[in-house]
Amino acid sequence: MKNYKEIERRLLEFLSKEQVTTNETVRQLHGQDESYHAPALPDIVVFPHTAEEVSKILKIANEYEVPVTPFGAGSSLEGHVIPYEGGISIDFNEMNKILEIDPESFIVRVQPGVRRLQLNKELKKYGLFFSVDPGADATLGGMAATNASGTTAVKYGVMRDQVLDLEVVLANGDIIHTGSKARKSSSGLHLNGLFVGSEGTLGCITELTLKVYGIPEFEVSGRAVFKSTHDAVRAVTALKQAGIPIGRVEFVDAESIHVVNKYSETDYAEAPTLFLEFQGNEAGLQSDIEFATEVLKDFDCEDIQFEKDTAARNTLWHARHHLAYAYKHAFPGRKLMTTDVCVPISELANSIDYARSLLKELKIHGGLLGHVGDGNYHACIMIDLSNEDEVDRAKRFNELIVTDAIKRGGTCTGEHGVGVGKKIYQEMEHKNALQVMRAIKQALDPKGILNPGKLL
Amino acid sequence: MKNYKEIERRLLEFLSKEQVTTNETVRQLHGQDESYHAPALPDIVVFPHTAEEVSKILKIANEYEVPVTPFGAGSSLEGHVIPYEGGISIDFNEMNKILEIDPESFIVRVQPGVRRLQLNKELKKYGLFFSVDPGADATLGGMAATNASGTTAVKYGVMRDQVLDLEVVLANGDIIHTGSKARKSSSGLHLNGLFVGSEGTLGCITELTLKVYGIPEFEVSGRAVFKSTHDAVRAVTALKQAGIPIGRVEFVDAESIHVVNKYSETDYAEAPTLFLEFQGNEAGLQSDIEFATEVLKDFDCEDIQFEKDTAARNTLWHARHHLAYAYKHAFPGRKLMTTDVCVPISELANSIDYARSLLKELKIHGGLLGHVGDGNYHACIMIDLSNEDEVDRAKRFNELIVTDAIKRGGTCTGEHGVGVGKKIYQEMEHKNALQVMRAIKQALDPKGILNPGKLL
Repeated sequence: MKNYKEIERRLLEFLSKEQVTTNETVRQLHGQDESYHAPALPDIVVFPHTAEEVSKILKIANEYEVPVTPFGAGSSLEGHVIPYEGGISIDFNEMNKILEIDPESFIVRVQPGVRRLQLNKELKKYGLFFSVDPGADATLGGMAATNASGTTAVKYGVMRDQVLDLEVVLANGDIIHTGSKARKSSSGLHLNGLFVGSEGTLGCITELTLKVYGIPEFEVSGRAVFKSTHDAVRAVTALKQAGIPIGRVEFVDAESIHVVNKYSETDYAEAPTLFLEFQGNEAGLQSDIEFATEVLKDFDCEDIQFEKDTAARNTLWHARHHLAYAYKHAFPGRKLMTTDVCVPISELANSIDYARSLLKELKIHGGLLGHVGDGNYHACIMIDLSNEDEVDRAKRFNELIVTDAIKRGGTCTGEHGVGVGKKIYQEMEHKNALQVMRAIKQALDPKGILNPGKLL
Repeated sequence: MKNYKEIERRLLEFLSKEQVTTNETVRQLHGQDESYHAPALPDIVVFPHTAEEVSKILKIANEYEVPVTPFGAGSSLEGHVIPYEGGISIDFNEMNKILEIDPESFIVRVQPGVRRLQLNKELKKYGLFFSVDPGADATLGGMAATNASGTTAVKYGVMRDQVLDLEVVLANGDIIHTGSKARKSSSGLHLNGLFVGSEGTLGCITELTLKVYGIPEFEVSGRAVFKSTHDAVRAVTALKQAGIPIGRVEFVDAESIHVVNKYSETDYAEAPTLFLEFQGNEAGLQSDIEFATEVLKDFDCEDIQFEKDTAARNTLWHARHHLAYAYKHAFPGRKLMTTDVCVPISELANSIDYARSLLKELKIHGGLLGHVGDGNYHACIMIDLSNEDEVDRAKRFNELIVTDAIKRGGTCTGEHGVGVGKKIYQEMEHKNALQVMRAIKQALDPKGILNPGKLL
C-alpha cells in the first residue's frame, strides 16, 4: 500500500491547493477516456503549470515508486490515460499556452495542453495552419503521445512528421530536449521520433515545437461512388501513380453511407464512396479535377461530384467527420468501439472485404471507413456492453482483423495507438524487436513508474 | 592485441575466401571516405551476402569484442566509415538486390548496397521514383545510416521520412524488423526513426522498405537573382506562406556562382541566386510561375528565368549539382571540406551572412549554398591540407558556424551526419539528452563494438 497521504503532503510543498486533489469526482474524470475500456481511478490528480513542477512530481513518484499517467483531453481511444495501477494522474490542461509563433520559420512552440482548434484559430491570423486532424479536439501533447494522424496525413504526414522538438521530463525528473528548431537534423540519435508515440511510457511532454504550413490557396472537395471497394481503392492508387497531388481521400463503405444519410439528412448513393479533396491554385485544380475524373471513370465510378463552394464542401466533410456520432445516433444504448489497422495499400481492398465478411459472420453492427491513401482503415462497431456474448464477438472481430493486417505486412494500429487495447498484439507484430523496445524502456524508466501497463 | 588470425579463421567457417580479406589495398579502400578526415585501416574486410551472414559476423565480433564498421559507397562526409579502432569493415556492396517493387503500395524493398541511381532506373519503368537525392550515388543503407537528404527534402522530406521498415542485425546477432509495410503506425516504440541516422552505432542495416512516389506530370525550373542573401531567403519564406508548393529551392551565393560560371561555361549574374523547381500539371504550373514571379519581384529580384524545356532545366540543375566539382576545379591541389548546419528559416539569412563574414575574416576560400526551404546550408571550403595554419582556420570556421547555428536554435548538421567531424558538438547541442542517447547505446551494444568513436 503506497503512502498517498505523505505523497500529497510532499506535492503540496511546491504545488498550490488548487493544483493537487484527491476529490472523487475529479479522480473519476481522470479514470476514463472515449474508449470502451473499463475505467480505473488515480489516487491523486495534479495540475502542473511548469516543466519544473512536472520534474518535481516525477522525482517524488520515482522516490515512492508510484505510477504516473499523463492526461490531456481524455479523447484517447485505447485506454491510454486510464491509470489501471492508480497513482498520480498529471492533468496538462493548465499548461495550455501558445508560447511562440514564428511564421517565417513555419514553427510554433506550444505547451502540451494546447488544443488543436485553439492552435489553428491563432495560426489563421498568420495564414498558417497545423496539419494533423484526428477528428477530436485533442491536446497537442496527447496527439504527440499517441502519434495521432487523420484525414490530412496522406498529404502532410502524421504527428511524428510535425515534431521538431519536445521538452520531456524523464522518470528521474531530468528535463531534456529531444530535438531543435531546425527543420531537419542528422545530429545525435533521433529522440523526437522515439518519444512521439511512446504514450507516456518514456517521459512526460511539457513543450512541443511543431511544423506549420501555409493555408492552400484553393480547395475543391469531391465525392465519388463506386461499385466495389476494390474499384474505389484501385482508383486512389491510380490517382497517386498519375502524380495528382491529393489533399485528402477517405473511403466510406455502403453501410456507413446509409448511417450518414439518416443522421445528416443527405441522400448520397449507398455504395462504396470516396470523399476527396484537392488543393492548389485555381487553374491547377481545374486541371487536377479533369484528370482525376478521367482516372476515376476508368474504375467504373458511377457518380462524381466536385464542390468548390465552401458551404457545399463543409456539408460533404461534415458527413465524413461526424460518422462516429452518426453511428452513436443510429444505435442508441450501444457503445462505439473504434478500432484501426493499417496495411500496405495493395492489400487494403482485400483487408476491408475480409473485415466486412467478418462483421456479417459475427453478426456485428458497424461500418468500415478509412484513410485509403495511407492504407489505414477503421471499423466503427456498435456494441451492447451488457451483452457478454456480443462483447466477446467484438473482441474476436478485433483480434481477427489485427491478425489479418499483420499477416498482410501491416500494423495493429495506424493512428489510435496501443494503450491497453492493442497491447496483446505487440509480440505478434514486433516479434524480437519488442526486446529492443523493452531494453529502451528499462534504460529510461528502471522503476517502471511511467504509465505502467500501457504499450509494452 | 586482438587475435585477428583466429577471427579470420572463424569467419571462413561460413564465408567464402572471396568474402573475407586482409589485403592491404582492399583495407585501404575501406579506410577512407570523401571527407578531409584522416584515413585508418580495418584489420579485416568482409563482403556478406545475407542477413544471416551478417548476424554470424556480429556474433563473432561481439565474442572477440572487436569493432565493426559498415561500409557502402564510401561517400560519407564526416568520416563515418573510417574504422579508427580497426576491426572488421563490413562491405555491403554485394547485397545490392532490389527485392520487391510494389507499385500499388508505393513501396520498394531493397538490400542495403543498392545505389540510388540503380533504384531510380528500375523505378522509372513503373512511373515511380525514390525522392531522396544527396548528390552522391550513395547506397540506400548508407543514406539511412546518416539520414541523408538533399535538394528534394523541402517537398518530400528526408531519408527518415521514407523508411517504413529496416531489417537490422544487432550487436548480439539478433535480426529484428524496426517497422512494417504499413505507411503509418502507432504501434510500439518507433524504432525506424531511431535506427535511421544512428550511423552504424546501434546495428547493421541488412534490408530497407522505402516509400516511393509517382513521377510528377510536369516540372519547371527557374533561376532568380537577388541583391542580398536576405532578399533571397525572405522570398522563399513568402513563397511558402503564399502556399505555392515548391519542388526544390536552392540558394547559391555570389562567390559560388562565379565558380560555376568558370566551370560550367555559363554566364549567370554573380549575385545571390535561387535555383527553383515547381512540379504539377501544366495549367497549375503556369499559374504557380506567374504568382511566384510576382512574389519574387516583391523582394527586389532583378532577373528571373523559368525553363520548361528538359535540356535547359538540366543545364540549370547541372550547374547546382556540380558545384562541389566546380570548386575542386577552381582550386587545384586543395581539398574540399564540406560542412553543413541547419537553423530555423527565420535565422538563415543572418546565419549565412555571418558565415560569409567569417570566411573573409579567416581568409578562407569557399562558398555558401543551401537547401533554403529547410534552413540548411553548406559551406564548401577549399583547404590546403599541407598548410597547418589554414587547416586550423578551417577548423575554427567550422566550430564558429556550428556554435552560431546551435545558438540560433539549430543543429550542428542538417544532413551530413556526425561521424567523427561533428562529435565534439554533440554535448553543446543535445546537453543532457546525450545521456538518454548513451543509455540507449549502452542497452543495445553493451560492449561498444558497433562503429566505436562515431556519433556518441
